[in-house]
Amino acid sequence: MAKKLVTFGEVMMRLSPPGYLKFSQANSFELVYGGGEANVAISCAYLGMKAAHMTRFPDNALGKAATQFLRKNWLSSDQIIYGDNKLGIYFLEKGAVHRPSVVVYEREGSAFSKIQPEMIDWEDVLKDADWFHWTGITPAVSEGAALSCLEAIKTANKMGIMVSGDINSRKNMWKYGQTMQEVMPKLVAHCDIVITSPRGINEMFGLGEVGGKLKDSAQELMKAYPRIKKVVGKKRKSVSASEQEIQGRIWTGTQYIKTETLNISHVIDRVGTGDAFAAGLIYGLLHYDNDIQALDFATAACALKHTVMGDVNMVSLENIISLMEGNTSGALKR
Amino acid sequence: MAKKLVTFGEVMMRLSPPGYLKFSQANSFELVYGGGEANVAISCAYLGMKAAHMTRFPDNALGKAATQFLRKNWLSSDQIIYGDNKLGIYFLEKGAVHRPSVVVYEREGSAFSKIQPEMIDWEDVLKDADWFHWTGITPAVSEGAALSCLEAIKTANKMGIMVSGDINSRKNMWKYGQTMQEVMPKLVAHCDIVITSPRGINEMFGLGEVGGKLKDSAQELMKAYPRIKKVVGKKRKSVSASEQEIQGRIWTGTQYIKTETLNISHVIDRVGTGDAFAAGLIYGLLHYDNDIQALDFATAACALKHTVMGDVNMVSLENIISLMEGNTSGALKR
Amino acid sequence: MAKKLVTFGEVMMRLSPPGYLKFSQANSFELVYGGGEANVAISCAYLGMKAAHMTRFPDNALGKAATQFLRKNWLSSDQIIYGDNKLGIYFLEKGAVHRPSVVVYEREGSAFSKIQPEMIDWEDVLKDADWFHWTGITPAVSEGAALSCLEAIKTANKMGIMVSGDINSRKNMWKYGQTMQEVMPKLVAHCDIVITSPRGINEMFGLGEVGGKLKDSAQELMKAYPRIKKVVGKKRKSVSASEQEIQGRIWTGTQYIKTETLNISHVIDRVGTGDAFAAGLIYGLLHYDNDIQALDFATAACALKHTVMGDVNMVSLENIISLMEGNTSGALKR
Amino acid sequence: MAKKLVTFGEVMMRLSPPGYLKFSQANSFELVYGGGEANVAISCAYLGMKAAHMTRFPDNALGKAATQFLRKNWLSSDQIIYGDNKLGIYFLEKGAVHRPSVVVYEREGSAFSKIQPEMIDWEDVLKDADWFHWTGITPAVSEGAALSCLEAIKTANKMGIMVSGDINSRKNMWKYGQTMQEVMPKLVAHCDIVITSPRGINEMFGLGEVGGKLKDSAQELMKAYPRIKKVVGKKRKSVSASEQEIQGRIWTGTQYIKTETLNISHVIDRVGTGDAFAAGLIYGLLHYDNDIQALDFATAACALKHTVMGDVNMVSLENIISLMEGNTSGALKR
Amino acid sequence: MAKKLVTFGEVMMRLSPPGYLKFSQANSFELVYGGGEANVAISCAYLGMKAAHMTRFPDNALGKAATQFLRKNWLSSDQIIYGDNKLGIYFLEKGAVHRPSVVVYEREGSAFSKIQPEMIDWEDVLKDADWFHWTGITPAVSEGAALSCLEAIKTANKMGIMVSGDINSRKNMWKYGQTMQEVMPKLVAHCDIVITSPRGINEMFGLGEVGGKLKDSAQELMKAYPRIKKVVGKKRKSVSASEQEIQGRIWTGTQYIKTETLNISHVIDRVGTGDAFAAGLIYGLLHYDNDIQALDFATAACALKHTVMGDVNMVSLENIISLMEGNTSGALKR
Amino acid sequence: MAKKLVTFGEVMMRLSPPGYLKFSQANSFELVYGGGEANVAISCAYLGMKAAHMTRFPDNALGKAATQFLRKNWLSSDQIIYGDNKLGIYFLEKGAVHRPSVVVYEREGSAFSKIQPEMIDWEDVLKDADWFHWTGITPAVSEGAALSCLEAIKTANKMGIMVSGDINSRKNMWKYGQTMQEVMPKLVAHCDIVITSPRGINEMFGLGEVGGKLKDSAQELMKAYPRIKKVVGKKRKSVSASEQEIQGRIWTGTQYIKTETLNISHVIDRVGTGDAFAAGLIYGLLHYDNDIQALDFATAACALKHTVMGDVNMVSLENIISLMEGNTSGALKR
Repeated sequence: MAKKLVTFGEVMMRLSPPGYLKFSQANSFELVYGGGEANVAISCAYLGMKAAHMTRFPDNALGKAATQFLRKNWLSSDQIIYGDNKLGIYFLEKGAVHRPSVVVYEREGSAFSKIQPEMIDWEDVLKDADWFHWTGITPAVSEGAALSCLEAIKTANKMGIMVSGDINSRKNMWKYGQTMQEVMPKLVAHCDIVITSPRGINEMFGLGEVGGKLKDSAQELMKAYPRIKKVVGKKRKSVSASEQEIQGRIWTGTQYIKTETLNISHVIDRVGTGDAFAAGLIYGLLHYDNDIQALDFATAACALKHTVMGDVNMVSLENIISLMEGNTSGALKR
Repeated sequence: MAKKLVTFGEVMMRLSPPGYLKFSQANSFELVYGGGEANVAISCAYLGMKAAHMTRFPDNALGKAATQFLRKNWLSSDQIIYGDNKLGIYFLEKGAVHRPSVVVYEREGSAFSKIQPEMIDWEDVLKDADWFHWTGITPAVSEGAALSCLEAIKTANKMGIMVSGDINSRKNMWKYGQTMQEVMPKLVAHCDIVITSPRGINEMFGLGEVGGKLKDSAQELMKAYPRIKKVVGKKRKSVSASEQEIQGRIWTGTQYIKTETLNISHVIDRVGTGDAFAAGLIYGLLHYDNDIQALDFATAACALKHTVMGDVNMVSLENIISLMEGNTSGALKR
Repeated sequence: MAKKLVTFGEVMMRLSPPGYLKFSQANSFELVYGGGEANVAISCAYLGMKAAHMTRFPDNALGKAATQFLRKNWLSSDQIIYGDNKLGIYFLEKGAVHRPSVVVYEREGSAFSKIQPEMIDWEDVLKDADWFHWTGITPAVSEGAALSCLEAIKTANKMGIMVSGDINSRKNMWKYGQTMQEVMPKLVAHCDIVITSPRGINEMFGLGEVGGKLKDSAQELMKAYPRIKKVVGKKRKSVSASEQEIQGRIWTGTQYIKTETLNISHVIDRVGTGDAFAAGLIYGLLHYDNDIQALDFATAACALKHTVMGDVNMVSLENIISLMEGNTSGALKR
Repeated sequence: MAKKLVTFGEVMMRLSPPGYLKFSQANSFELVYGGGEANVAISCAYLGMKAAHMTRFPDNALGKAATQFLRKNWLSSDQIIYGDNKLGIYFLEKGAVHRPSVVVYEREGSAFSKIQPEMIDWEDVLKDADWFHWTGITPAVSEGAALSCLEAIKTANKMGIMVSGDINSRKNMWKYGQTMQEVMPKLVAHCDIVITSPRGINEMFGLGEVGGKLKDSAQELMKAYPRIKKVVGKKRKSVSASEQEIQGRIWTGTQYIKTETLNISHVIDRVGTGDAFAAGLIYGLLHYDNDIQALDFATAACALKHTVMGDVNMVSLENIISLMEGNTSGALKR
Repeated sequence: MAKKLVTFGEVMMRLSPPGYLKFSQANSFELVYGGGEANVAISCAYLGMKAAHMTRFPDNALGKAATQFLRKNWLSSDQIIYGDNKLGIYFLEKGAVHRPSVVVYEREGSAFSKIQPEMIDWEDVLKDADWFHWTGITPAVSEGAALSCLEAIKTANKMGIMVSGDINSRKNMWKYGQTMQEVMPKLVAHCDIVITSPRGINEMFGLGEVGGKLKDSAQELMKAYPRIKKVVGKKRKSVSASEQEIQGRIWTGTQYIKTETLNISHVIDRVGTGDAFAAGLIYGLLHYDNDIQALDFATAACALKHTVMGDVNMVSLENIISLMEGNTSGALKR
Repeated sequence: MAKKLVTFGEVMMRLSPPGYLKFSQANSFELVYGGGEANVAISCAYLGMKAAHMTRFPDNALGKAATQFLRKNWLSSDQIIYGDNKLGIYFLEKGAVHRPSVVVYEREGSAFSKIQPEMIDWEDVLKDADWFHWTGITPAVSEGAALSCLEAIKTANKMGIMVSGDINSRKNMWKYGQTMQEVMPKLVAHCDIVITSPRGINEMFGLGEVGGKLKDSAQELMKAYPRIKKVVGKKRKSVSASEQEIQGRIWTGTQYIKTETLNISHVIDRVGTGDAFAAGLIYGLLHYDNDIQALDFATAACALKHTVMGDVNMVSLENIISLMEGNTSGALKR
């Protein structure tokens, strides 16, 4: 029977000028929706898992349309709650070669940022779930979001549901009076799987000078928070905005494993590739019985996302397995 | 030499699904910009006047793009100020026949709403101006906007610049602690020309039961605020979302004049038609020496706006004069 | 608690040239999905009902995409079955004024046409349903479809679920060896509510010369099939491809009621307006306690569908109620 | 066997902003091709006739693309000649209701304007033709075009091919040193069928004050040029840019006949409707044995063109016959 | 005088999501037409040859539109026959980098598949032809298609027309009761030029283990079928869906020649590149007097097709010659 | 205070098929405007300089729209003059890999080509300017343009304004009776900065065989025209239409400096990259106090332009500085 994933976080409307136009050239915007955690849920749903995303949308036509995007992409929508009147928006100007992408956020005061723990019955939301996933963006949004996330994690712990956190956060998002360093450790302590980078760990936990290696930082982290079983990261080399290289790495507690490096020579859309990695990891750990295959799966999923427009990875299980097995030819089978 | 108009108010990004698609069907948005007062300035600029719009945009790529829209449409941009990081947005789903349009605003906390009187040197902004125009939306946005507007009006008075106000306001916009009834009279008292409806006057000034005729309400208003020289209105009949009828009317202090009724049988875009009326009135009063022609000009301008996509009236002087002279055939001249 | 509707029938990919382009001018097609019965289910879902559509799609990327369309439009998708490799397609060239629309079907051999009764567990599909709806298209597709439909109706009867049939059919669709006259009566006999036209009844049942009035035909029909409680129709006048008039009518067994005539002066999309009527009728009969209001609701829903692109009525409950109460102005409320 | 029509004249690239956008709003242009005479040839080809258009295009990629447009629309292209490097262009801003369309020409110095009689072997071009058609635009373009047209007409006369001329011309096009009044009579004298308006006749031939009736002007014209057998016109009422009325009229030499008036309530594209009338007349006179049916056919064809995007009438024979027989319902037949 | 090519086979409507969108993201399809043999004819027509394609389309609006596509692209259309009501369709989701393209066919039961030899007068169709070309797709479609193809080849033999066959076929297309191995040899036996791969030859003719070299397989093939004069192939390396490498090779009966390898670093559209190779070969063999230049021409044509959207190679003779001469710079000449 | 640049030259409408479509595939054109000198002015304006472009447009709707493009892109428009009725147009078919772009001009007889020195008050136009820039295209257009350009340069000399010329010209543009060699030296003699290539210098001035090195040609040029202070060039390697390499080089009078080579691996739009280089040089010389930084800035600006759609470089100062400092990663900063 299909495994079930639940995620929690904000979903924003994403507006981008067509093709490679700059904001100053745009006369229309392409419209999709995205958010780190929902991206993970949808990726897993495309791979055949059951998936639900918990969020809060404004109680208006835009909130309905955002919900419809999640439904279309195979998520259930019964658990979503509505209130207030602002949907978070982000504007994306896609870069190329030496020209970086530009992102402008209009997310302050969104319906999601006003979420409060008492609005959610986590036991109900997590019913039948095998896995709960969150990211470091959510607790940065507002105190209500941070508290709700903590409650979700604790409820998952109680219900015996695996918890993974993609814990990197953006320092300049934290504006509600508490710092990343104050809040994050409380959440991370209850995680089974942590996705992060050495810099992320050190910044967040002030673990001191541990050399910038994932292996070392991970060991420190697992010493401090013994619930954590694996620490996973991916190394990205941005050759240019149009060409990227990706390599997965994991500290399993006993072993440090790296995958082959995958080169994505013609990037279509770089947004959400980290979420595709997380989704691949969750799928991989649930469906393969060894870490190296799970990591290969995650890395292949991440690489493939670079070729899909939007925030969300929509590639098929067959695509990922084929790449994971070394077939990089992209050849059409008729 | 061309007459110069200055206006003041918020400019929002307008996002609409293509054609008659509903929000739930949209995969892209058409992008224009609009705001009641800027719409008036641009209309007048297309007619050959000089025009500048005073506003405040966020200090980011979207604020720049909004400025470029104003520049493209013939306004000067040197006086615009920048700060904060939110551009007001509104979403428009265009209706048809019995299905009304739907508008969703995301304007709270915009850079404009945080404007303060001390940010603006009105004597500099109004230099060389012949006319200043404002609307009842601006004082509803925030206390800072209301105070800035009042200062603009008073400065215009001092500099001998004509002041017109399109004073209708939306009751449910007033959220910063003062009511329409408290704030508006202070601004209206300093106007030379008022554009409004009988309901608008009565609602705002509590002038009692005066029968719902513009003439009567206008007389009361001018008694209370003797600076006001003319009160102007337009009567709209919404046959359906696709068909509208427009008639102009003016109380000149001594005379009550109505225009012919113009039927717009195939509406292209109904937004901004009131602003087109105001712009037509300003142009008309500046360029014709009698009120009836000015009013005919305003009504023709308003009718023609219904055929132009976006918030802004871009028709030519020739178009308006031709319709004003009774040519409703829309026939192409080669 | 929300009432639940279940429908059954083929869903086709609909491809149309943009705007009013003819097939010979098309370089792209706009893509939506539609099918008489699914259209009804979706309309009801937009009004807040629970709704599920039973169908069979090809087991390939197109079948998945069609399912996603249903999910996006609020239907559940768990009950849908997959097999074979052809999705029914229809091409629509939209007409205007005196130029009629053109429809070209490529639906023969579709996955749906190969459906067989044993593929469906109707008791499971109809669980929790309050209403089952089918149309005269389904039994015309194939013998398997006709038998499946009959089984659905009988199961609904057994489970105490209301059954409505929009029984008009297209004579030239019946190609599998049985005629409309042979098959349809078996299905109609088990219906509670029948939607049809006098011509439809007479053609199908050979009831003789009964004058072309719905009232008379309906009485004959109800005499022959006593389970039928109401016979409902709408009268359409096609002023031109761009202007239509609609009037609802019902024979309640004791009373013959007609609604006001609604004129749709600017048609956006005429396809699926009959399905919108059926959906409105189902919603109306479930939520109003008198036939006249239910019929007014159905007629208003039908009229509004003419303003929505695609096969499906997506207007809101508020829109329908407002029109049903006589507000034809299409005026935007801010 | 299918009858064959040959036409002669310039074909221009037509560039228009999408939908109802004004030039100042355009970020792209829709691209079609058109020219009065080619429009007639293509219309007849869509009705099943054989048709060829003689013209001269620049010897570059644009000339090739223009040829491909003619080929796609069923014309043969072997006779077309190439030289020089400029393709005539016209820009069309589509009007609505009271706002007229705007046309801007960039056709001076085009490859066609440099055509010379010696470039064309008319006996070869007219081989197998049953009908030759020209318009008053061609002789206005250049002396070479006028001389080539005259030679075509005389060759047709010699070969026993019917000649029709749509002789209205635009006075301000005549810039090469000869006037309309000097050139046109030489061409008209050799025509069998003349399409024009009373004003057109009087302006061109200075026939004096003949009261503005087609019948009277036609009689004068046929007296002066006895080869002319019929004079045909259509009366247009431009209710607005969005609504037009059309009525056909013919002076058969002995009889003055008018058709019913057709109202086109929702105009899609008004350009080329006169050419559709001419094409309908040619088809009608070749395929019906009485003038009234030919004229009804022409008028119905003209009305239907108003619903087709582009310069060219692409409606089917069935569409025209149905409208000609009084079916104005635009109803879809499935 | 221009050489004339005739081809025979099915032409399908091709529908693809815009850009790199996946089927699940598509709200519109871009529309072109294509088919292996017609692609070859059109390529040659763009190079200045005369070309006709023989096929059968449904007798409806879509069959007409498909014909218009062929006409636009310089093919004659008089010989095309019409009947039945289904046009073959294929859906193409374009891949990128490691993500392969996806193709879904809906071609079963098409008008072309119902073609029968007695429907075609091959002597008439092949009149004036210098070359006849077919592919291994056609005999796979249906027995009627296979028999018609055989008759075409034999008629060409009789009339002294060169015959080339691109004989690779797709095993899983053969569903009408005969196998590739039964049917193909009868057709190949009458060919002058065969385009294939070693694997293609071995699979089709069961020539045993001949080592996988074109040279060896070709010699076996020419021994078995002495009419064959040259066997030609191209070697493709799919670096990724976005980057391809192409090398031409020929066994001339006495010599084995390979071209330089061309790298296509940014693929625009990979479909139809094999057909572009075949077209280049036909053109090359007809216009160059040595095999190496013909092969270089074919390989350059193939490489350039990767940069053209659609199934069809539309590059100019100049483009191919320039690349064939080693100019890979793609530099614009003004 | 911001430095001010004035430029002079023709601005053309640029029409291109979407994406990589060929002219034969286009059904619409994307519309921007461009011209070598205006491109330079706009680039500098995006970097924060004040900039004005002097040109002449037709006195019609297209001339207005072209002006609006300049205004939108931050140029002032008061100085622009209007007359005649033709706007220069160029059509651009974008190439890829081995397929070169194709450009077709329709610029003969444009309003700009009819410009005459007496139409312009250069002292007024150049008021407050710090720099005047022209290119070798302008004197090639017409004698009037050449004389106007000369007058501009001399006026700038008189007013103490720096003058730069991008002096490469296209030999086949010179059609008005004077040759490049006759006209250009008169203009170049008055320049302070010359942008060119060795081939450009030699071709234009017949400086003999100087070996093809910029350094040598530059020295000869500066000997002949002692006002010239620096000669600047860029070396381009066209790997393919999709990949370019750029290196800047300058002869400062005493020193020959080359920059690093920048590789643009995925070209978005190659047009206007030379103008971006010139703009970068002007900005660099005005804002850096050493030639090497100015040249690095110019080269980075040029490279970045390859990633921007249209003729005009719209990248930010930050983008250029980042690339100039060696950051080629194109990584997004959030």
